[in-house]
Amino acid sequence: MKVTREQEISIDRLSENLRELAEIGRQEDGGLYRMAFTQADMDGKDWLENKMKEIGLETRRDGACNVIGRWPGRQPEAPALLIGSHIDTVPCAGILDGTLGVLSGLECLRSLKEEGLEPLSPVELIAFSDEEGRFGGMFGSQALAGQVTPETIHGAADLDGVKLSDAMVRCGLDPWEALQARRDPESIAAYLELHIEQGPVLFEAGEQVAVVEAITGLFKWTVSLFGEANHAGTTPMPMRRDAFMGVADFAHELPRVLDENGSERSRATIGRVELVPGSPNTVPGEARFSIDVRDTDEAVMQELATAIRKVLSAIARRRQLKFSYEEESWIHPVECESGLVDLVEAAAQDCGVRYRRMASGAAHDAQIMASVCPVAMIFVPSKDGRSHSPAEWTALHDIEAGARVMRRAVEQYAFEVRVGKEEGLG
Amino acid sequence: MKVTREQEISIDRLSENLRELAEIGRQEDGGLYRMAFTQADMDGKDWLENKMKEIGLETRRDGACNVIGRWPGRQPEAPALLIGSHIDTVPCAGILDGTLGVLSGLECLRSLKEEGLEPLSPVELIAFSDEEGRFGGMFGSQALAGQVTPETIHGAADLDGVKLSDAMVRCGLDPWEALQARRDPESIAAYLELHIEQGPVLFEAGEQVAVVEAITGLFKWTVSLFGEANHAGTTPMPMRRDAFMGVADFAHELPRVLDENGSERSRATIGRVELVPGSPNTVPGEARFSIDVRDTDEAVMQELATAIRKVLSAIARRRQLKFSYEEESWIHPVECESGLVDLVEAAAQDCGVRYRRMASGAAHDAQIMASVCPVAMIFVPSKDGRSHSPAEWTALHDIEAGARVMRRAVEQYAFEVRVGKEEGLG
Repeated sequence: MKVTREQEISIDRLSENLRELAEIGRQEDGGLYRMAFTQADMDGKDWLENKMKEIGLETRRDGACNVIGRWPGRQPEAPALLIGSHIDTVPCAGILDGTLGVLSGLECLRSLKEEGLEPLSPVELIAFSDEEGRFGGMFGSQALAGQVTPETIHGAADLDGVKLSDAMVRCGLDPWEALQARRDPESIAAYLELHIEQGPVLFEAGEQVAVVEAITGLFKWTVSLFGEANHAGTTPMPMRRDAFMGVADFAHELPRVLDENGSERSRATIGRVELVPGSPNTVPGEARFSIDVRDTDEAVMQELATAIRKVLSAIARRRQLKFSYEEESWIHPVECESGLVDLVEAAAQDCGVRYRRMASGAAHDAQIMASVCPVAMIFVPSKDGRSHSPAEWTALHDIEAGARVMRRAVEQYAFEVRVGKEEGLG
Repeated sequence: MKVTREQEISIDRLSENLRELAEIGRQEDGGLYRMAFTQADMDGKDWLENKMKEIGLETRRDGACNVIGRWPGRQPEAPALLIGSHIDTVPCAGILDGTLGVLSGLECLRSLKEEGLEPLSPVELIAFSDEEGRFGGMFGSQALAGQVTPETIHGAADLDGVKLSDAMVRCGLDPWEALQARRDPESIAAYLELHIEQGPVLFEAGEQVAVVEAITGLFKWTVSLFGEANHAGTTPMPMRRDAFMGVADFAHELPRVLDENGSERSRATIGRVELVPGSPNTVPGEARFSIDVRDTDEAVMQELATAIRKVLSAIARRRQLKFSYEEESWIHPVECESGLVDLVEAAAQDCGVRYRRMASGAAHDAQIMASVCPVAMIFVPSKDGRSHSPAEWTALHDIEAGARVMRRAVEQYAFEVRVGKEEGLG
């Protein structure tokens, strides 16, 4: 079906909404500070719920304070298509990130309503709580997927030591209600999320949209190498057990490890390095570093983990070091559902936008939602690959392209027949 | 001349003195905290001055609070042989370090006096102030060599921001007097310092003494590499400008740089690394690291500096990074005076100890003193190469060997004829 003009979303209205919500939580440095369960976050949720009401959605907040706007459609008992993302931010954030996904969804539904369309099955717009991780991340989607336990509610705290439960109480919420947020998977047909890419691939290629077919898994280790701290002047080079030289060896081997054991989608990053004692005139006796490894294939992740252990072990032997590592996290990769991916791709083709299929290197609520329903994602380009920064941006015509693809996908998924305006919602 | 038993120093007495002085500034963790111009340091100086008086030396403190015990000898106007080191410590120090040099000197002079010997020319035992660097290091020897300026006195501060001048005033000293501590080089014949090696060479070789023929120079740079901070998941490996990978490349090239441009005595150490933002899931956009490079030949140091600049430049080009570096210090290497070195070596042979000639990789007061007089040094082994730690130790029979070599060298340098006890000091 060819898209005609009247089916278009309004980029002006979407842009205006982005601008309005960007006023909530903005600080003097130009960054957004709408971290989960702050006043700004709650103000943002209020603003969003009002916007949902304005277009006639039935709104509610679940026990995790996820904001949900429902369009019941012709078969309110049928499983719902969920679209959305999150509106909470990291500190000093840009104005897009997850917010773009939520407001694009809002604009899609608004334009569909305006054209008098009525879904066959329910469509819900959702903004998940604490995706960004003030208290660990993905709290809202985890709660909905039934992955939150009393331990989470009791234990989670932010970097300043503020407990999740205290922050929620301060927002007038009952933290234990989060355990009630779990939703019967039977009530969810699928989850579709639009997000900025947060990487440089689309921007560099001059493409407007990505059809996301997988979300990478990752494992994060803290590795410690133990040598011997010695005087930088008095210890001859061959008599050293320099822990940092072990880290350097490891970094040097990483590209080979990825070439031999990884895929095109593999990534490995050493983001943090600490030397002990960390003095310019002392041979480092101890080095601790982080290694973050990602791939979309769990078997590849396993192979990379094995290869990395071997490399560390060989380096330790060669340099007379000891090593240990702690697995900080192991997050499973997620395949998007192929039927839903094909549907999004068809939508991109219908809309005539420049697109590619790709994997997400970042984690998203869709990753959690995949445990309860089919998921797919749409990416729009991040200028210069920037995100989590006031410099984060996407050209408006690319935002428009993304929102149009989303609308087209939603339409194909949940709207079977076009009805006249007189049959639309009053 | 063969050494006879009566010329021996007393290791028991030396050991007893080490133990006594180790009580001053010891804290509960077993470490010594006799940092320059603390109460413990001043108590140590008082203790030392009393010990000097006990054996009949004429004591004084110069404007830098260097403690000096003088034995005028038969020609009090002649240039003096200075022996000694320092008794200040780093925080949590062991009990030897410079203290061993001062107390070995004390024991040498005591045993010479007891045997009724009288030097032809003056011999002075000196303990220099702040060798360890609470306020920058080598303060006492620099003052004596005329290298201290009002800027030092005004500007120097410790890591806690305490100013040198305030610390001195609190010890009842007038900091400006340090400018008066400069001594006419004509009044100094030579400087001989015994010190622990602070490295593993003698210990590993099972040798007792080193005859030090040079003290390495060093340069210290802080190098910064600038790339681009990016998301560890969304940024494909080939699109990264990872500042840490530049550091790793550099570390990997260091052995080649030393092989190609250095000498057997060259050392290079990366002791400190800081990544920005330093988060496990962010590709480091900036890396700062220290590089400490040493050799006994200034031309070699120059070649190493040139080679290192080239390596940094090549890495920056290859990885699309920018780099800058700041030279934190450039300390010239020092040759010990060959006549004095030969005299110390002859002393080691006379004493029948296992010795080698070697260079000092650490800096010492002798390095400063070399600007005003001939210098030489004697090292004794450091168990396991340890120093600046309560684990610092030297077997007593090696301490004895070092002190005997020192006594023999002092004797050969300053004592021409043996006199009877009745002619000794009263």
